[in-house]
Amino acid sequence: MATFKLIEYQDASPEVRAVYDDIMATRKIDWINNFWKAIAHDPATLKRTWESIKQVMAPGALDALTKELLYVAVSVTNNCSYCIASHTASARKKGMTDAMFHELQAVIGMANETNKLVTGYQVEVDEQFKVTLDK
Amino acid sequence: MATFKLIEYQDASPEVRAVYDDIMATRKIDWINNFWKAIAHDPATLKRTWESIKQVMAPGALDALTKELLYVAVSVTNNCSYCIASHTASARKKGMTDAMFHELQAVIGMANETNKLVTGYQVEVDEQFKVTLDK
Amino acid sequence: MATFKLIEYQDASPEVRAVYDDIMATRKIDWINNFWKAIAHDPATLKRTWESIKQVMAPGALDALTKELLYVAVSVTNNCSYCIASHTASARKKGMTDAMFHELQAVIGMANETNKLVTGYQVEVDEQFKVTLDK
Amino acid sequence: MATFKLIEYQDASPEVRAVYDDIMATRKIDWINNFWKAIAHDPATLKRTWESIKQVMAPGALDALTKELLYVAVSVTNNCSYCIASHTASARKKGMTDAMFHELQAVIGMANETNKLVTGYQVEVDEQFKVTLDK
Amino acid sequence: MATFKLIEYQDASPEVRAVYDDIMATRKIDWINNFWKAIAHDPATLKRTWESIKQVMAPGALDALTKELLYVAVSVTNNCSYCIASHTASARKKGMTDAMFHELQAVIGMANETNKLVTGYQVEVDEQFKVTLDK
Amino acid sequence: MATFKLIEYQDASPEVRAVYDDIMATRKIDWINNFWKAIAHDPATLKRTWESIKQVMAPGALDALTKELLYVAVSVTNNCSYCIASHTASARKKGMTDAMFHELQAVIGMANETNKLVTGYQVEVDEQFKVTLDK
Repeated sequence: MATFKLIEYQDASPEVRAVYDDIMATRKIDWINNFWKAIAHDPATLKRTWESIKQVMAPGALDALTKELLYVAVSVTNNCSYCIASHTASARKKGMTDAMFHELQAVIGMANETNKLVTGYQVEVDEQFKVTLDK
Repeated sequence: MATFKLIEYQDASPEVRAVYDDIMATRKIDWINNFWKAIAHDPATLKRTWESIKQVMAPGALDALTKELLYVAVSVTNNCSYCIASHTASARKKGMTDAMFHELQAVIGMANETNKLVTGYQVEVDEQFKVTLDK
Repeated sequence: MATFKLIEYQDASPEVRAVYDDIMATRKIDWINNFWKAIAHDPATLKRTWESIKQVMAPGALDALTKELLYVAVSVTNNCSYCIASHTASARKKGMTDAMFHELQAVIGMANETNKLVTGYQVEVDEQFKVTLDK
Repeated sequence: MATFKLIEYQDASPEVRAVYDDIMATRKIDWINNFWKAIAHDPATLKRTWESIKQVMAPGALDALTKELLYVAVSVTNNCSYCIASHTASARKKGMTDAMFHELQAVIGMANETNKLVTGYQVEVDEQFKVTLDK
Repeated sequence: MATFKLIEYQDASPEVRAVYDDIMATRKIDWINNFWKAIAHDPATLKRTWESIKQVMAPGALDALTKELLYVAVSVTNNCSYCIASHTASARKKGMTDAMFHELQAVIGMANETNKLVTGYQVEVDEQFKVTLDK
Repeated sequence: MATFKLIEYQDASPEVRAVYDDIMATRKIDWINNFWKAIAHDPATLKRTWESIKQVMAPGALDALTKELLYVAVSVTNNCSYCIASHTASARKKGMTDAMFHELQAVIGMANETNKLVTGYQVEVDEQFKVTLDK
């Protein structure tokens, strides 16, 4: 049960609509998903979060699909159902095949396992990994 | 302080050496990092974990670098220092540039933030994301 | 699906009823929420947990509302849906306005983001923060 | 071991210096802590993160000290040592007394405990907590 | 909503059926739970995961029930609903009484609480606990 | 760097000494580990936590060693270094052999892996696991 009733486009303030419009234009879609409609109750957070997401998720040194896969990896590790559903869908739209999905999940599972083996055995960092780069 | 003294190659049983040899051959390196030397106290886990890692991290639908980036994303979200140090080093070896590293961290940070906004606002999954694929 | 059928007041043992009575008297409410009815199957844990909560959540150096906000912050970070729903409701009862709720979520989100940036960049603690107080 | 050498003020680009200057001016301090010097390798993330933090942590419906306490609660739950050290120090500067610190930790501990009892007993949300607010 | 339609026995490939058969034979049951039917879309992961689980969960120095209790403890700490439901059921089948269940949850809750008190007070490891065993 | 200087026995108040005495008597040891000396700055939390631990960790339906193993499982999953070091030491004192330690870690690792596979594939709970017990 959501904390607040979702704010639909027709009920939104001009400030909120401007963000909704930019989301739809940037993503080339004609609807807004619930996350934005929920945080729209706090227009400052809506705007800040959208602008951050827009900047961070834009293709750069990493392509857009890789970034979605990373988002899924974090969301699964954090066990955020909404985020898993939405970013799995986004990743598919950006070209994730079933084979990629399976390998993604296998890596996430494996990483979670070895993270804990390392921790449980209290393994100390190898000198070879203690590298501080100058630039 | 590690739970067990690390098992060096010269002190290892033939069973453990065989895994060490395969790690070095597969990764084209001439040393073994502490993780393996720690879990070598349990040869069954050493062998099972290495064979799983070898299968999961091999290039497939996702390339080897993308898999390392995913490993870092999970390790940061889990706050596993050893894993962050070792997989950041591996990712560099596989071609991660500084620009990629920065974008990786930005995505991890952003995903952790929005995971919690979604959770805190108790946002319900959009019907559009409720998709079960047949294949 | 709950592990156990909830134990309602009329079906409770005198020992469990005594805790239920104290919860209702302390909180000035006339009903018991599911959490207590679930752990009532273990009267020792029911009593210990209630007495601990009663001590910890009583106003002291921090007021009751601030303590509820902290509870929400932990529950969101842990992704505990029940706890988010119940403590968001409690916080409202204790005076949390919508504006406070929004700022609470923004801080939780931001803290989760920077926690991971710090971790991902393997930032070392500043000497200025390494302070051990005598008292 | 930090991933990158910290960027000191005298070595920083004008873009980075502008952020450093604003951090010092806003916080009325004359030094920059390691977190900013680490992420300064990515000026876009430095600027975005600082501007977000500045907006989110400014006193509003919640005062600056309450926001720091919430930051500590998240950081402890996430087990981020750097963040605990830095935000505990910040909270002290903003007026957190020892008594407040103790109550803060007691609430964090208790919340983490009951989060897991709720989860382990698979407790379902009470109808009374299923409230969606219109505004 | 599951990501993929579950793969039922009658629709499974011989490779997948072989794993299903081994699961049922090993566990002396005549049905397959959803987890396996979901990951069966990736036969390599299905096989690897099952073989690992079979090896790890077999009675050894620790008996089968203790291993299930540990599985529940991890699943509750990770907040994985499916895993809590399935491993609580498995633990019951292997002999977990209600009294054991209650003590299990009490330990999980307590451990989560003290984990955070330790972290929040930044307690340093005692010299007495810094022990590295030779074998 | 601990938040507070540890409170040694000779410097402790009678109230704190009483708890220290009970810890040493109950555990049949002649020293107090840092955790208690750190939280002793908050005598109410010291007393409440010790009494809870004493109740929860006493042998009952589960024996003392099994409870320590569960504590380690939670601590590893939460990545609490202090707790891993101290409870691994306690488990050894209570009879954990090396073989048990290895199986413990293998189960923890495996559980963390399958928790995430379940989550990533968004697997729904089987009807067979949806059981609410009356007692």
